[in-house]
Amino acid sequence: MVVIGGDAAGMSAAAQARRLRKADELGIVVLEQGPDVSYSACGIPYWVGGQVSDRDTLIARTTSQFAALDIDVRTGTRADAIDLAAGTVTTSAGETLGYDNLVVATGGRPFRPPVPGLDANGVYGVHHLDDGAAIRAAIAAGAKRAVVLGGGYIGLEMAEVLQTRGLAVTVVLADPLPMAQLDADMAERVCKSMCDMGLDVQTEQPVREIEVDADGAVRAVRTDAGSYECDLVVLGLGMGPEVTLAQEAGLQLGVTGAIDVTRNQRSRSHPEVFAGGDCSQTFHRITGEPAHIALGTHANKQGRIAGSVIGGRAAHFAGVLGTAMTKVGELEVARTGLCTTQAENSGYDFRTELIEGTTRAGYYPGTAPIAIKLITEKGSGLLLGAQVVGGPGSGKRIDVLATAIWAGMTAEELAGSDLSYAPPFSPTYDPVIVAARVASRVEQG
Amino acid sequence: MVVIGGDAAGMSAAAQARRLRKADELGIVVLEQGPDVSYSACGIPYWVGGQVSDRDTLIARTTSQFAALDIDVRTGTRADAIDLAAGTVTTSAGETLGYDNLVVATGGRPFRPPVPGLDANGVYGVHHLDDGAAIRAAIAAGAKRAVVLGGGYIGLEMAEVLQTRGLAVTVVLADPLPMAQLDADMAERVCKSMCDMGLDVQTEQPVREIEVDADGAVRAVRTDAGSYECDLVVLGLGMGPEVTLAQEAGLQLGVTGAIDVTRNQRSRSHPEVFAGGDCSQTFHRITGEPAHIALGTHANKQGRIAGSVIGGRAAHFAGVLGTAMTKVGELEVARTGLCTTQAENSGYDFRTELIEGTTRAGYYPGTAPIAIKLITEKGSGLLLGAQVVGGPGSGKRIDVLATAIWAGMTAEELAGSDLSYAPPFSPTYDPVIVAARVASRVEQG
Repeated sequence: MVVIGGDAAGMSAAAQARRLRKADELGIVVLEQGPDVSYSACGIPYWVGGQVSDRDTLIARTTSQFAALDIDVRTGTRADAIDLAAGTVTTSAGETLGYDNLVVATGGRPFRPPVPGLDANGVYGVHHLDDGAAIRAAIAAGAKRAVVLGGGYIGLEMAEVLQTRGLAVTVVLADPLPMAQLDADMAERVCKSMCDMGLDVQTEQPVREIEVDADGAVRAVRTDAGSYECDLVVLGLGMGPEVTLAQEAGLQLGVTGAIDVTRNQRSRSHPEVFAGGDCSQTFHRITGEPAHIALGTHANKQGRIAGSVIGGRAAHFAGVLGTAMTKVGELEVARTGLCTTQAENSGYDFRTELIEGTTRAGYYPGTAPIAIKLITEKGSGLLLGAQVVGGPGSGKRIDVLATAIWAGMTAEELAGSDLSYAPPFSPTYDPVIVAARVASRVEQG
Repeated sequence: MVVIGGDAAGMSAAAQARRLRKADELGIVVLEQGPDVSYSACGIPYWVGGQVSDRDTLIARTTSQFAALDIDVRTGTRADAIDLAAGTVTTSAGETLGYDNLVVATGGRPFRPPVPGLDANGVYGVHHLDDGAAIRAAIAAGAKRAVVLGGGYIGLEMAEVLQTRGLAVTVVLADPLPMAQLDADMAERVCKSMCDMGLDVQTEQPVREIEVDADGAVRAVRTDAGSYECDLVVLGLGMGPEVTLAQEAGLQLGVTGAIDVTRNQRSRSHPEVFAGGDCSQTFHRITGEPAHIALGTHANKQGRIAGSVIGGRAAHFAGVLGTAMTKVGELEVARTGLCTTQAENSGYDFRTELIEGTTRAGYYPGTAPIAIKLITEKGSGLLLGAQVVGGPGSGKRIDVLATAIWAGMTAEELAGSDLSYAPPFSPTYDPVIVAARVASRVEQG
């Protein structure tokens, strides 16, 4: 078994296959072009921000820990080509490795706007630990002003932590609002909170150029509306699938441009090849439609499925709701299932309800506002999607909604369910129940 | 419509009936023997502790707010008798009120151990706002040492807040452990945490006597093992149904000793009479068996059901899981569904799994230990119950488990579900997923 890519999906596949098959039954080689395996890309913002001081804590398991499991991890080694007919992988070390099963876990590729100057010194992604190290070094070297391009999870997190480190931060968005994964009325709350924090949010301004000084260093980000001076630029524009190698080899891609796989994570064109994580296509739990949503949670699970199947145990991936969460300052932001745009695109007849409440009993210290928006199918009352924006304690409530959607519950069923209450943790009726009840009442007329 | 009892169940019934029927269609009278309606008994500990400074904030809606809805609330007025044949209620004000529908919401009755001295000055319940006022007054008058009898939700909360107020607190338990609603291995964690906080926890010591001084004030609590000097005693021994009035009138009681009602909250013996909240019997969502669990969440919903049905809208109560939560110091404690003893008593063939994890990414500041115990049915893998004990951010995760149990999910289904992840809020695999996966793996062998 050969694995290409040593992060979430790849190492989950390797570890799970090893759990099921001993070294004398199954050899496992992992090729990783970077210096690290099994690292938390999601932790990079907090390492930059200083909440995490030690780079090594972002590495869940080291190469030597995997070696102890008889998993042969080769860092600094690129897979240069896959020969699907021969069942071999050629590496940058000049080796040709044969495989019975191949796992392609090449991950994601950060979107890069097609503008001049993007290769200037001082323009950083947030993808590998080295990116984090470079941003930390830039701050240590005296960077005072940052521009963050993009307002998704990474954009928000980077904006917050750069501000924490004392930089003046401008967030430049092509869209009218941050958090395209939310409906506009919920994203407006995020935008307002960002502005209240002192972030300079510039909307509806596609970037036109990264202005570069004579030394080749970034000087400003230019849009049609203005030029924003800065010492560093962070790319937070989202992630597409990294499929160069797969495409060159002739693995079938799906409509999303990611590797097309079955629910076993097997390539549809080459069943001895598996793919998982950001390079692979998956499907939406509700609609059944193909989806590409780059999230570590999915990658870990998909890798594990691939490893189980290779190891001989039946397993299948059960789909994604795109449940995700982040924070910007004290504001917690979370979503699951379909947002309004997705529900429209999938042809649902649906309604939306937005409620406002508090995270704790209204009288309990530290209670904070929370807004919950539910999207339910007309006629059935089935929960299709949910969004949460609010103060501390808000975000993780998305998991209740994700579980309800996962189980195929209606708003009415959720409204009747038995959630916990104690004044330090919720009002008597948890805001999730209130939202479900309002949605259910509207459905019933 | 006459309502007896003006707290959670009673006022929910009144308010919901009024939403559906205007004043010219339905007169509503509420009899409340105390001075307040719609107050948060669950907030009393935090008022005693000083987290809440103003008594009035514990009152969700005042008498005059209800009056504005044309609900005739009569505080300080007791219902002395119900004549079921005549359809009347006699009040302590000497009136006889006729009703088409009666809602009995007389609430709970705190358990009182049958020992001498229980009526001494300085022995307090935690039931009405006046109890809270009395304890506050005792502290203000210089109380230095407290004994809390009982280690359930109220016992834990009162122990914490009295300690916060500077009192030395001894918790005296008849049981070997606090939190009888948990399995022993989980309750041990609570007990250890209480001891680590500096609470003096005395177990397996049924109270034998409240020792009283010459002035009639409490002096100590005596058990077989010793005598614990104190200036005040708090009763936190749980709550039975207050059914004196119902029983005298001839309303049928169920096997739990509470008023026997249908899923519409109608009395089984007298369908024009409804009951809800702590005085009424309900049923367990999983087993279908009769249950009496005194919780404000249930009371609010049951009252609302009664009000809906009286108001002409179909509604039914969907059962309880007994989902509940509290905290003691920084430790959060929550449970839902069946614990081991309940699963045994209900004849299930089940297994238990206990996992330990962290509330946030292991590297993120403020990450805290969390333990989750799952009870699943052998053969089916169905989730039957869950318990959570851990640091800040642990407890509300019970709602995910309660929703999964409510929906009839198996551990395997929950393990595959799509929960949120961000380093400040969970590890990549939320501990709920980890627990479900372990339970599922064991089921699969």
